[in-house]
Amino acid sequence: MLRTHTCGELDINNIGEEVQLSGWVQKNRDLGGMTFIDLRDRYGITQLTFNMDESSDLCEKARKLGREYVIKVTGIVIERSSKNKSIPTGDIEIIVSDLIVLNASKTPPFTIEDETDGGDKLRMKYRYLDIRRKPVKENLMLRAKVSIETRKYLDNQGFCEVETPYLIKSTPEGARDFVVPSRMNEGQFYALPQSPQTFKQLLMVAGMDKYYQIVKCFRDEDLRADRQPEFTQIDCEMSFVEQEDILNTFEGLTRHLLKEVKGVELHEFPRITYDDAMKKYGSDKPDIRFGMKFVEMNEVCQQNNFVVFDSAELVVGINVKDGASFSRKQIDKLTDFVKTPQVGAKGLVYCKCNEDGTFKSSVDKFFSQEDLNNWADKCKAASGDLILILSGEKLKTRKALSTLRLHLAEELGLRNPEEFAPLWVLDFPLLEWDEETNRYHAMHHPFTSPKPNDIEKLDTDPAAVRANAYDLVINGNEIGGGSIRIHDGELQKLMFKHLGFSDEEAKEQFGFLIKAFEHGAPPHGGVAFGFDRLCAIMGGQENIRDFIAFPKNNAGRDVMIDSPSFIDNEQLNELNIKLK
Amino acid sequence: MLRTHTCGELDINNIGEEVQLSGWVQKNRDLGGMTFIDLRDRYGITQLTFNMDESSDLCEKARKLGREYVIKVTGIVIERSSKNKSIPTGDIEIIVSDLIVLNASKTPPFTIEDETDGGDKLRMKYRYLDIRRKPVKENLMLRAKVSIETRKYLDNQGFCEVETPYLIKSTPEGARDFVVPSRMNEGQFYALPQSPQTFKQLLMVAGMDKYYQIVKCFRDEDLRADRQPEFTQIDCEMSFVEQEDILNTFEGLTRHLLKEVKGVELHEFPRITYDDAMKKYGSDKPDIRFGMKFVEMNEVCQQNNFVVFDSAELVVGINVKDGASFSRKQIDKLTDFVKTPQVGAKGLVYCKCNEDGTFKSSVDKFFSQEDLNNWADKCKAASGDLILILSGEKLKTRKALSTLRLHLAEELGLRNPEEFAPLWVLDFPLLEWDEETNRYHAMHHPFTSPKPNDIEKLDTDPAAVRANAYDLVINGNEIGGGSIRIHDGELQKLMFKHLGFSDEEAKEQFGFLIKAFEHGAPPHGGVAFGFDRLCAIMGGQENIRDFIAFPKNNAGRDVMIDSPSFIDNEQLNELNIKLK
Repeated sequence: MLRTHTCGELDINNIGEEVQLSGWVQKNRDLGGMTFIDLRDRYGITQLTFNMDESSDLCEKARKLGREYVIKVTGIVIERSSKNKSIPTGDIEIIVSDLIVLNASKTPPFTIEDETDGGDKLRMKYRYLDIRRKPVKENLMLRAKVSIETRKYLDNQGFCEVETPYLIKSTPEGARDFVVPSRMNEGQFYALPQSPQTFKQLLMVAGMDKYYQIVKCFRDEDLRADRQPEFTQIDCEMSFVEQEDILNTFEGLTRHLLKEVKGVELHEFPRITYDDAMKKYGSDKPDIRFGMKFVEMNEVCQQNNFVVFDSAELVVGINVKDGASFSRKQIDKLTDFVKTPQVGAKGLVYCKCNEDGTFKSSVDKFFSQEDLNNWADKCKAASGDLILILSGEKLKTRKALSTLRLHLAEELGLRNPEEFAPLWVLDFPLLEWDEETNRYHAMHHPFTSPKPNDIEKLDTDPAAVRANAYDLVINGNEIGGGSIRIHDGELQKLMFKHLGFSDEEAKEQFGFLIKAFEHGAPPHGGVAFGFDRLCAIMGGQENIRDFIAFPKNNAGRDVMIDSPSFIDNEQLNELNIKLK
Repeated sequence: MLRTHTCGELDINNIGEEVQLSGWVQKNRDLGGMTFIDLRDRYGITQLTFNMDESSDLCEKARKLGREYVIKVTGIVIERSSKNKSIPTGDIEIIVSDLIVLNASKTPPFTIEDETDGGDKLRMKYRYLDIRRKPVKENLMLRAKVSIETRKYLDNQGFCEVETPYLIKSTPEGARDFVVPSRMNEGQFYALPQSPQTFKQLLMVAGMDKYYQIVKCFRDEDLRADRQPEFTQIDCEMSFVEQEDILNTFEGLTRHLLKEVKGVELHEFPRITYDDAMKKYGSDKPDIRFGMKFVEMNEVCQQNNFVVFDSAELVVGINVKDGASFSRKQIDKLTDFVKTPQVGAKGLVYCKCNEDGTFKSSVDKFFSQEDLNNWADKCKAASGDLILILSGEKLKTRKALSTLRLHLAEELGLRNPEEFAPLWVLDFPLLEWDEETNRYHAMHHPFTSPKPNDIEKLDTDPAAVRANAYDLVINGNEIGGGSIRIHDGELQKLMFKHLGFSDEEAKEQFGFLIKAFEHGAPPHGGVAFGFDRLCAIMGGQENIRDFIAFPKNNAGRDVMIDSPSFIDNEQLNELNIKLK
């Protein structure tokens, strides 16, 4: 080993010891008589000192070390005269007696500091330097910690890790499959899995009982800022379980992770139905770190000759605590915000609950002080609060108010990244109408089971059929979801019928799974958590890219290795394909 | 939960309890008055009993259950009158009071027993049924155990798991890359990694210090029986280390795994140089569970007018303990064996060391009793032993004798799969001559560092240059290997020159890595273990396919899901490719 210690472990207890350290030159300060070097490795930073009077050659050598040079030193640990309380090694320094340059370094294209001067593009191109920066390194180490703790928890619960294949089969519906030409099977292709869904269900048929995997999945879709063509999932499936068993198991996992990784003890997770989530938050992934729950106000707002409200399907408000002090300008800005295309509301009605018990609204023409008092009662608004109201078509209005609610929370500093507010959203609809294809699609996937009592509505009111499907939401982010699957062949056939699959289509797409189910499928269900997202949330951030060692950009490119790239004709020939 | 217990956990301590079990019908025995069902899940088998006299309806229902039906039962645990000592639940049975059929099953196409009547092809097609069989299930569970124990060990040693990308870049030398057309980057391709080699070295440049990953790798090559197009590696890299540090770390891992998974305590691993391994075993992956080391016999065999020996570069023998009792027929069979094309020797010379102190050889015409006595001395053969000798060109003869040695060990039952004999093979040659391209290739890979003292031989005697490269061998199987990498830019350039890369070629293939190395690369090295092979060896078997949940056949096909397969033109169009 080229070191006796790391750069993060020496302290007052090591004083007097001769040690060897290796690492990178973080900083080199030449103070004339003395030269100080901050030596960095994954574990921390240790100060090295060189004294011109005592060993001038060594000191000369040290002075010449550039940033990011890799060196090995031997020296004695001494107590610092001026201590640095901000780092664990801040009580000591090393009087260097020997210095070896292990490798030189070009000047890095951006500073290797917590706050760097490097832009996003440059940092991605030199990702191997970006990772030397503490915030990026710590994100990756947090990810590793979440991974091992996930495994320990699931292993303790009797889950068996099984690796499912990466070279699988493309399906006609798999328009977003990445495919892989087979050299040995001319003209044929493998597909990379969008998820191991089919295989984990096969493992349940196989009797594996409790399966998990932390696994890469692939989707060739147009990328939004927070999507990656390859992403990682915590993928689980259990047999002989009901929904409650799954919720308990994965609430346990989440609690374990928050405790082990963040030191946060969580209470029992609240639960909300999909319908209630839409009603109270206008979203199926509500952020419940703060209030401002929706209050439906048709009753107290309509039939007052204010046509905007009277003609609306829904009048819905939120109570902004202590918001009465908002200036006219602030409220105007909020009004502008809701009118932007991405929110799409026509206007914003407000009502200030003044400290003196009076009310001031933007619609005083239509509503008396008594009316406004009724609003305040309905919204449980007290003196000093501000009621904000949107109205219109139900779904659209809820969505708009949800956006406003999150925007306000952001502005008011209510979205504390170090607070964790998990929530189960239950009873998702089984089906959702697809405008494009003009038919119902499975909201989750075609193997999701309907609530038994709702099955009869499949014919009469398909949209009202609820599923045994659930999502885990933390801080307004969908961390993952799952469902109890259909294990009964007849019910599965019924579902395919309602999803508009012919027998042939169903067979072509899911043939081997349907066949497997004929050989004794147990009741089963599972979840998949988005691992990148989970890590980002636990790291107090929302951008998943910062929690991936080598991410791709929004065009699906790895700018560091310059991929994808062209390949030569010989290779194309061997694969029996050519470019169009 | 659809059960209070699993089928593997009830015993004498549960007597009198009411329990619920769910599982598959393994066996259904109708004895008239009584019906017995063996109920199976991942955890074991529990006997259910139904009494015709006491509950005829239930018993009738039970009688009708076919093999592999999925059922849930409620009942009371009682002590069995005739106990089954071969299973953990053998002391008890369940008197069933309620039976629910959760799912019917078609009759499975082969028996779900330890020894099945299903052929290989059928088992692969119905892999989800094959996995229900105990030996297959246990292989997969052993694999999961090896995986979690690997992670625990490396995590404890400070290794950080980092996920490297799967969609990377094809290189001109990557003829065996699987490639993935990019929809968004027209005409361009990603490649699937043959290993994360480049990325793990970048992670060392990035200061991650100790990296590991259990990761899928891909190679589109013609498959031998024990190769898979996708395979799994334990991939590791460490910074600021020397060879000794790596050997110690991964010897520790291997010892940990054998202890935790198999309960076997291993001693310090023996080490052998590549040269010695070739000399003493004719192989760079010797099986040292047994003796029969090679003895070079030129000195005692040549110059006796036996032209076969006299003209041979090498005369080399092994001593088969107690082999003098081999019959003429047995020795003829061995002779036939060495003459087969896969061994390729011209003949086999034997010498029996008789119990009475005399010798009997196949070349008595040329060698006196005294000569033969010298052979025996040289081979440390005692009365009752048998010396077998091959001769000819050195490399070929060693290889042939190695094959014979393993064959004999197999025949003599010396290859006990429950014995584990690990071995480090060190000092591999840096380069190997490639007949096809008429130049030297890196034996390991182009970043492997030469032994410092051998660098000067790069010009004069390239084949003699040894590398800081090592393999771990267990029971004659290469489990993995690695090397100390070159971290010095100048040395790397020298290496590229000797490997026949022009500057442009080196830049094109390894450009970003070379560039990264200019920014302060630490000394580093690592290993990769073949995870499938390691699991197979630990499971006492040599076929890796039995340790993969969903393996592909020798044509790279998954016969269960029927992949690879054709994809439609629309999809090809979107990917900007067409078939040749």
